Amino acid sequence: MATVSLSGTLVEKLEAASAAGFGAVEIFEHDLLASRQPPEEIRRRCADLGLRINLFQPFRDLDSRDPARLAANLERARRKFGLMERLGVDLMLVCSSVGDDAVADRDELAAQLHTLGDAATEHGARIAYEALAWGRHVDDYRVAARVAQAADHPAVGTCLDSFHILSRGIDPAGILDIPGALVFFLQLADAPRLEMDVLPWSRHYRCFPGQGGLDVASVALNALLAGYDGPLSLEVFNDTFRQAPALQTARDAHRSLLHLQDVMRRRIGERRSSGVRAAAHELDRVEAMLAPVAPPTTPGGLAFVEFDDEDDGALAGLIDRVGFARDRTAPDATAWVHEDVWLATRPSGADRARVSGLGVRVPDPGRAAVRARQLGCEVVSVEALGQPLQAVDAPDTTRVTFCPPRTPVGDPAHGGVPGLLGIDHVALTQPWYEFDGATLFWKAVGGLDSQASNDVPDPYGLVRSQAMTSCGREVSVVLNVQPRRAAEEGPSGRDGTQHVAFATSDLLATADHLLAADVPLLHVGDNYYEDLEALYAVPEDQLAAWRSRGILVDQTGRGRYLQLFTRTVGGVFLEFVQRVDGYTGFGARNAPFRLAAQSRTGPEA
Amino acid sequence: MATVSLSGTLVEKLEAASAAGFGAVEIFEHDLLASRQPPEEIRRRCADLGLRINLFQPFRDLDSRDPARLAANLERARRKFGLMERLGVDLMLVCSSVGDDAVADRDELAAQLHTLGDAATEHGARIAYEALAWGRHVDDYRVAARVAQAADHPAVGTCLDSFHILSRGIDPAGILDIPGALVFFLQLADAPRLEMDVLPWSRHYRCFPGQGGLDVASVALNALLAGYDGPLSLEVFNDTFRQAPALQTARDAHRSLLHLQDVMRRRIGERRSSGVRAAAHELDRVEAMLAPVAPPTTPGGLAFVEFDDEDDGALAGLIDRVGFARDRTAPDATAWVHEDVWLATRPSGADRARVSGLGVRVPDPGRAAVRARQLGCEVVSVEALGQPLQAVDAPDTTRVTFCPPRTPVGDPAHGGVPGLLGIDHVALTQPWYEFDGATLFWKAVGGLDSQASNDVPDPYGLVRSQAMTSCGREVSVVLNVQPRRAAEEGPSGRDGTQHVAFATSDLLATADHLLAADVPLLHVGDNYYEDLEALYAVPEDQLAAWRSRGILVDQTGRGRYLQLFTRTVGGVFLEFVQRVDGYTGFGARNAPFRLAAQSRTGPEA
Repeated sequence: MATVSLSGTLVEKLEAASAAGFGAVEIFEHDLLASRQPPEEIRRRCADLGLRINLFQPFRDLDSRDPARLAANLERARRKFGLMERLGVDLMLVCSSVGDDAVADRDELAAQLHTLGDAATEHGARIAYEALAWGRHVDDYRVAARVAQAADHPAVGTCLDSFHILSRGIDPAGILDIPGALVFFLQLADAPRLEMDVLPWSRHYRCFPGQGGLDVASVALNALLAGYDGPLSLEVFNDTFRQAPALQTARDAHRSLLHLQDVMRRRIGERRSSGVRAAAHELDRVEAMLAPVAPPTTPGGLAFVEFDDEDDGALAGLIDRVGFARDRTAPDATAWVHEDVWLATRPSGADRARVSGLGVRVPDPGRAAVRARQLGCEVVSVEALGQPLQAVDAPDTTRVTFCPPRTPVGDPAHGGVPGLLGIDHVALTQPWYEFDGATLFWKAVGGLDSQASNDVPDPYGLVRSQAMTSCGREVSVVLNVQPRRAAEEGPSGRDGTQHVAFATSDLLATADHLLAADVPLLHVGDNYYEDLEALYAVPEDQLAAWRSRGILVDQTGRGRYLQLFTRTVGGVFLEFVQRVDGYTGFGARNAPFRLAAQSRTGPEA
Repeated sequence: MATVSLSGTLVEKLEAASAAGFGAVEIFEHDLLASRQPPEEIRRRCADLGLRINLFQPFRDLDSRDPARLAANLERARRKFGLMERLGVDLMLVCSSVGDDAVADRDELAAQLHTLGDAATEHGARIAYEALAWGRHVDDYRVAARVAQAADHPAVGTCLDSFHILSRGIDPAGILDIPGALVFFLQLADAPRLEMDVLPWSRHYRCFPGQGGLDVASVALNALLAGYDGPLSLEVFNDTFRQAPALQTARDAHRSLLHLQDVMRRRIGERRSSGVRAAAHELDRVEAMLAPVAPPTTPGGLAFVEFDDEDDGALAGLIDRVGFARDRTAPDATAWVHEDVWLATRPSGADRARVSGLGVRVPDPGRAAVRARQLGCEVVSVEALGQPLQAVDAPDTTRVTFCPPRTPVGDPAHGGVPGLLGIDHVALTQPWYEFDGATLFWKAVGGLDSQASNDVPDPYGLVRSQAMTSCGREVSVVLNVQPRRAAEEGPSGRDGTQHVAFATSDLLATADHLLAADVPLLHVGDNYYEDLEALYAVPEDQLAAWRSRGILVDQTGRGRYLQLFTRTVGGVFLEFVQRVDGYTGFGARNAPFRLAAQSRTGPEA
């Protein structure tokens, strides 16, 4: 773990890394400079915390065409080697230069690195030379490796960084051509695909492997196949992580590393079957290096949704009115059943109603719990579906219980809701600083994949939205982050809503039932329907049928989506959706209008 | 004002625009669709609020190589023309297409626009065709104007948008070649210079003219010189403004328009003297169109700083201890004088000490107040420096009093602080949603210019920092926005500090005096000084002198900066700085270490 990836003082960062299970850290020089503890004390703290220090970084702008500046830079490096001795770290990261005076000639550059290697050796140190993606003359890892090799010095090697490689679209296959012994260090970072210059992208938007869109696993796998046997180190510059609680970020990071090795294991399997460029014994050797994690278990559906209700049972009242069949009353809950999906509300004394737990059906609940524990989750025993089960808490505190696969229900209660098929998706509002962590949780622990993410405008800001689905779409969880000002309005704020969407085979019939039952429904207004008319060529009567029921429509080349919303109770509303002709989205087109209507009616109306 | 620039529901946006002094709005279609009010009601509201609706926007992707799609698009447009009749607006913005089926052939495109012109005419409407910077075939305003002209239809013109022109670096001089009667509309937006693709830059980071780095005045001036005589309309897509209080954003926007016309007037003066491409009578004609604002008045220095103190007088105690000379006690304040600069604290019952007001010396305080009122500030009468003066409140509520120029002080109190010269700068923490508004306030009303802005890492996030200075650096105000998590910790949070920096001619002597007086000073730690040694070739004894006193150093090719900080009292600390060899910055290099040291000691320690 690079200390720069975490929030807080250097000591707080070290404590968080250790508590999350990391065995070593990279020390980012600025963290040390800003710290009151002398290097010897940091070294001692690390030892006490069970942390090795395996990199000191960064050393910038070594090489120079100006001999006087080169001499000054070497003197600066010597002082840092002295500092490293006191810290107890023998490897220094040297970035390719960005200065006007940077050396373009590769032989000259190699010679300067050789001189630095001599200076390092005097202090028992080594240097790892890295190509920054925005380096002046060296911006490609293949060039950096060639220069490091040409330096021809035992104390000079190279450092690979997945961001610098992948952000520029350079093929990581070239890593296989680098002698493993030359690779002194491997830094891993993922990032979302953003349309911006690589430098600000790198400085502000990196994230941990699995949280973004880069193929970090290929970089790491190729490095190990090339013979690298050092640490997999996470170096992430991220504006949000700078502010997030350090221990939580460190735990997410540790989970990311384990998940990454899981992905690498799958890649090894793929390469075995394709046989491309890697001998079987090499793949075996690398596979043996990877941390063992139980294989992922793909969810087959939701078994239940639990809610904290308000004291007056407002949400229970809404569910009753919708017409779900009351099943039985647990000592502390009101429960309904539809086919084999349960809903349950629990009076909680909470400010307002919220989704408190999900039951996820998996082929092997025991294995899912083992994997969750291996991925850093605290696993607790719970009683659910009338049996002892195991559960973990998602980063937003939603309890996720691993349930056995769908079993035939003796006498399924179909409830009184026409067309109802089951749960389509659940949408959960996340803390703003836990969005990437939540994505990784649902991917690594929950077995879901990320779909496209959206920024949805609501009247008072943009809602960041990320859908996660199982491969057969049996389970879909939508993660939302509300706009800052809404969030600052606190838990009573308008926008921290969650919702549960039920699939129906006939939304018109479902809607008629809900209207007859006096279920309070959301209406977006006539302007929306006039636009529908202009947008889609649909018969008058169909449009009238939608409009009169308050149904929203999204129609694309890939199907049609019909949506209907109840009004919000506390922090929860219910949605009913019908998917036609293979529509796979979640109605992002309509979300702004839904949000605007909700902001008009207020959360409690 | 484009409704899309403001936060809230459509009605809230209209109310804010009207209250801020706008006479007309562009209605962004999504705002209408999300609104419950029918178009007739919106029209009525606008009339009641004294707002004309002068544009309906946007209409996307009209042209198509596919005749069936073109026909569907024309039908969609006809429905929107009908909607516009109900709204009472006759001009529709048509963006250049981004679709795969967009028409590349300009004659064909002009013919399709001609057909749309016919459809518009049937409804008494007109269309303004605009080049999006990311349009598929039309991404340059000069091309859009040529196509609109080739359409050869009285209902077809073009729309100019400063962002789409300037973001792509296209020379706005070409506007002078467009017939003025062809320019149906002019949309203005500024933006900070960002290294990202133009589409996300446009969608998320636009700002009002004067808040960013684009030369919006040239676009507007050229359009008026070309003969355009329609509205100057602000179309800004900005993630922060989507969340900020609408009335405040609207007021900033209105101020921006007035300030823009002020800049345009200066440009006219420049063109008059250069004589390039514009006849004198044309410049006179355009100048007469601009809203009259009193010319800016450049501040010559600070006259005083006022603080709200805590009830126990903690800040007054610090100022006393520093050794400022107590001058006199106003009925409600404790005051000190140094040369002709006063400090005053006032017990306030506030949670913690803060800077509450600044006295700014200007050549003509009366004119400064007139200008401030013209720029939308509420001007209040105050008693200060023993005389009746006028003041306004900055967006962060700091009261700014316009004071007369420096007058010889009969018997100046030099105070007991060796080397002290006066106030170097004042740093004020801003609400996160008022950063751009504060920049514009200090520019337009305060007469300061923006310097480079920085993101400064502190242990718990990035501090956004913008220095504003008068041209001779007589007055410098640094605007900071604290990281989100620190801000959420509330007013007692660690990081919402303000400070006042005093210039000294000899910081070693000043420091010795402060140490002897037992003033509590901030220490950044030894690691910082070891790095100084590695960074700068300075004699041992000089380094020792800095280290022993806790002085921070920034040394660049353009001078040296020495800094010393007191500990924080409530939300305020004092700084003492020495500028050597023309250093003009504010020590951004050292800010992370200062912030880290402050986070260690806590605000009250």
